[in-house]
Amino acid sequence: MGSVQSRMEGVLARLLPPASVAPARLHEAMRYATLEGGKRVRPLLAFAAGELSGAATQRLEIAAAAVELIHAYSLVHDDLPCMDDDVLRRGKPTVHVEYDEATALLAGDALHSLAFQLLGEHRLADDPQAQLEMIRTMALAAGSRGMAGGQQMDLEATGRPLELPELELMHIHKTGALIRAAVRLGFSCGRISEPEQQKLDRYAKAIGLAFQVVDDVLDCDASTATLGKTAGKDSRQGKPTYVSAMGLARAREHAEALRAEAHAALQPLGARARRLGELADFIVLRKF
Amino acid sequence: MGSVQSRMEGVLARLLPPASVAPARLHEAMRYATLEGGKRVRPLLAFAAGELSGAATQRLEIAAAAVELIHAYSLVHDDLPCMDDDVLRRGKPTVHVEYDEATALLAGDALHSLAFQLLGEHRLADDPQAQLEMIRTMALAAGSRGMAGGQQMDLEATGRPLELPELELMHIHKTGALIRAAVRLGFSCGRISEPEQQKLDRYAKAIGLAFQVVDDVLDCDASTATLGKTAGKDSRQGKPTYVSAMGLARAREHAEALRAEAHAALQPLGARARRLGELADFIVLRKF
Repeated sequence: MGSVQSRMEGVLARLLPPASVAPARLHEAMRYATLEGGKRVRPLLAFAAGELSGAATQRLEIAAAAVELIHAYSLVHDDLPCMDDDVLRRGKPTVHVEYDEATALLAGDALHSLAFQLLGEHRLADDPQAQLEMIRTMALAAGSRGMAGGQQMDLEATGRPLELPELELMHIHKTGALIRAAVRLGFSCGRISEPEQQKLDRYAKAIGLAFQVVDDVLDCDASTATLGKTAGKDSRQGKPTYVSAMGLARAREHAEALRAEAHAALQPLGARARRLGELADFIVLRKF
Repeated sequence: MGSVQSRMEGVLARLLPPASVAPARLHEAMRYATLEGGKRVRPLLAFAAGELSGAATQRLEIAAAAVELIHAYSLVHDDLPCMDDDVLRRGKPTVHVEYDEATALLAGDALHSLAFQLLGEHRLADDPQAQLEMIRTMALAAGSRGMAGGQQMDLEATGRPLELPELELMHIHKTGALIRAAVRLGFSCGRISEPEQQKLDRYAKAIGLAFQVVDDVLDCDASTATLGKTAGKDSRQGKPTYVSAMGLARAREHAEALRAEAHAALQPLGARARRLGELADFIVLRKF
């Protein structure tokens, strides 16, 4: 896992525009938002799914970088004062605090474009038509019927209690869509049968939700220092969480059930899916 | 010209997610930001360039819509309080005034993703590899070395006088990149020789700059009612403009010179370039 993480640091550093190129402040902010931080869960998933489909490492690097850039852009925008208004991310001041709001807005926008630039300019699949399909997958996952839509649902949910199905729908969009895209982009860099794709998609759906359930549990449980971001903020902001919807103990059980579901989806794939199984464990058992 | 504009209204209305689909408020805001407004200069350019390369109308509709969505997203973000803080656009309240800042931010983000979704999911070129190249073109035009980069240069220029070359560099990024992409995406939907592509690119560069020079002249000259956006704002905000850099009379001459250059680039293409020539005239001679 550490090897993918350190590899991705180098890949992202190489693919992001250098801070020496104009407009320097924007490029600096893009690098600040992306480098030296994060668990790189989405790249890890893309690599593990790609290993299973026999994908070449150079392709996986690009696909994983594109997903991570979309994730990084979403965090920059999400932290802005008009959204979550957060000052701390990955143990550092958020981009608009370190730079300014306008630069943060544009850095997010430019990271968003850069992700699609990478997906357009590098060879990621034997068949270019399959690569166009990957671009569509990513755009759908990021857009109004994916991540951005989930953030809107989140906005609208603040201050009112959500029923569990509504909460689940929100997270399927907000976090789940990009996690599924990470797995799909990863295996699409190689070759894999349609039934196997469906199993991986079921796995990705389960861990996408598990990821959010665990986030909510940790937000309630852990300290700001451990998380590297402001702890306990969701409940103070009146945001519905799994913990507020079902209590801490049942939220923990729910995460466990989703972990079991993810493993069940992988089971027919045998030893080739070992790494994906380990990632399911990492996502649910992590302490930060 | 009117026929492309009304056709695009229908195309965009069909391609944008319906306001009845959840998250409804986000989809409403995306439609509000895009429909019933604007001169549709970029779609007009894409259609005119595509006519020259014998491109099919269905392809041009998608390419033109994608460029217009990128343009619309950039206006929504540009109007936000942390950027230009504008309350009026196309004669209507800006998106963050009509909705709220967070919804405007997300609507811009979702329009941005939707543009790439369209470019990935519809057939736009005979060769899918050429379509990947179109996606790269669009991403570069929108990103930190294109439009978003130009906006950053604009931010940093506010309140200090710019030399003409710096001003030009800013506008080549801020407005020019997307106008060039509109022309390139348009002709890429059909077939055209490499030397002809270069002529069209020279044309697009000239009108991209002319567009901005004329904008600056109009901002200084016209009334808010005619423009449908706040007039005289740039100079009040201390933004460098062609008028502040070279005076009104010389700015007008500069626009004329760029129009002549655009026509010169088209000249070898003969009658097939008639519409592009008309658009150069429209861009420079417009009163709004």
